[in-house]
Amino acid sequence: MLDAAAKVFHERGYADASVQDVADELGILKGSLYHYIDTKEDLLFRLLEGTHDDVNRILEEVRAHPGLDVLERLRLYVQRQVEYNLANVERVAVFYHDLDRLGEKRRRDILARRKAHESFVAGLISEAQRTGAANPALDVQVLSRCVFATIIWTYKWFRPDRDGPEHVAHSCADFALRGLIGQTAPVALPPVS
Amino acid sequence: MLDAAAKVFHERGYADASVQDVADELGILKGSLYHYIDTKEDLLFRLLEGTHDDVNRILEEVRAHPGLDVLERLRLYVQRQVEYNLANVERVAVFYHDLDRLGEKRRRDILARRKAHESFVAGLISEAQRTGAANPALDVQVLSRCVFATIIWTYKWFRPDRDGPEHVAHSCADFALRGLIGQTAPVALPPVS
Repeated sequence: MLDAAAKVFHERGYADASVQDVADELGILKGSLYHYIDTKEDLLFRLLEGTHDDVNRILEEVRAHPGLDVLERLRLYVQRQVEYNLANVERVAVFYHDLDRLGEKRRRDILARRKAHESFVAGLISEAQRTGAANPALDVQVLSRCVFATIIWTYKWFRPDRDGPEHVAHSCADFALRGLIGQTAPVALPPVS
Repeated sequence: MLDAAAKVFHERGYADASVQDVADELGILKGSLYHYIDTKEDLLFRLLEGTHDDVNRILEEVRAHPGLDVLERLRLYVQRQVEYNLANVERVAVFYHDLDRLGEKRRRDILARRKAHESFVAGLISEAQRTGAANPALDVQVLSRCVFATIIWTYKWFRPDRDGPEHVAHSCADFALRGLIGQTAPVALPPVS
């Protein structure tokens, strides 16, 4: 149901799409959809919640992964998030395109969940700066936002018929790591995992 | 007129906004707006064209700027584009949010103009790789897209009451340069201009 909603919202635009369109995409009656939701906004909220459930699992996997130093942990986070985005372009597009269409309470709820990711990445960058793995002179908040830019914008340019997802995920992780390390002295990037 | 259109399309969403809303924002009669445009899509197209006129001026300024080496030219491009985005958040938001709402011919027209920017940046990165200023082992297309991610995504996170535009533009340019240079050997970043 959420995949169908993502497809329909992405193709028609959330504002122009209807619950009927989503039912048609699923090949079921609109009434059947109304067993699960009351409004089109419910569908959007479920979709964004489901996407956050997915990316939270990535965050927890990366947080709990044993034996990584701070740069390796950052790299794994970027790589896994890019891989997720490339495999779920429609969901990610709707997430960033239509978040503001939610009612205020639900919008805040989703933004709070996103905040956990921002804090995680900013925390790792701060730790890298404290331990000398990254240049402590740089602005952690701006670095963190540039790292998310690298991760998120992939949904706009990735073409499955042209780009290899694994290559893109590794290349983006490398790009972000070099950017956030911010040293001009020799730095060996952590190995690809 | 275009600033008012940007504000209205950004706040209400293009699909939900009307020519009447734009006229109200300007404090004029809808009939007066129809001297300049025939449809809401005309307004959107004019807005995206105007935005491209602006960023093309930046491209030409950077291309013609005398006495820059290739990395300095790349840095200047990123810095100027970020500065433009931070000063025109609503226009840039509408550009990336509603480009697909244009009719097919107009959409292709705008995409072709965007292509010129992608070619410019990819060309400079290739030149940097050829001249040894950047690591030639890296994928120019992915690097170029990550550079644009760094530039473009600022419109989503910049808060004028919190972030200094000059600091953000310099920090983003540094981040992108480190990412695209892609060397682990000592590299002195070009000076800020």
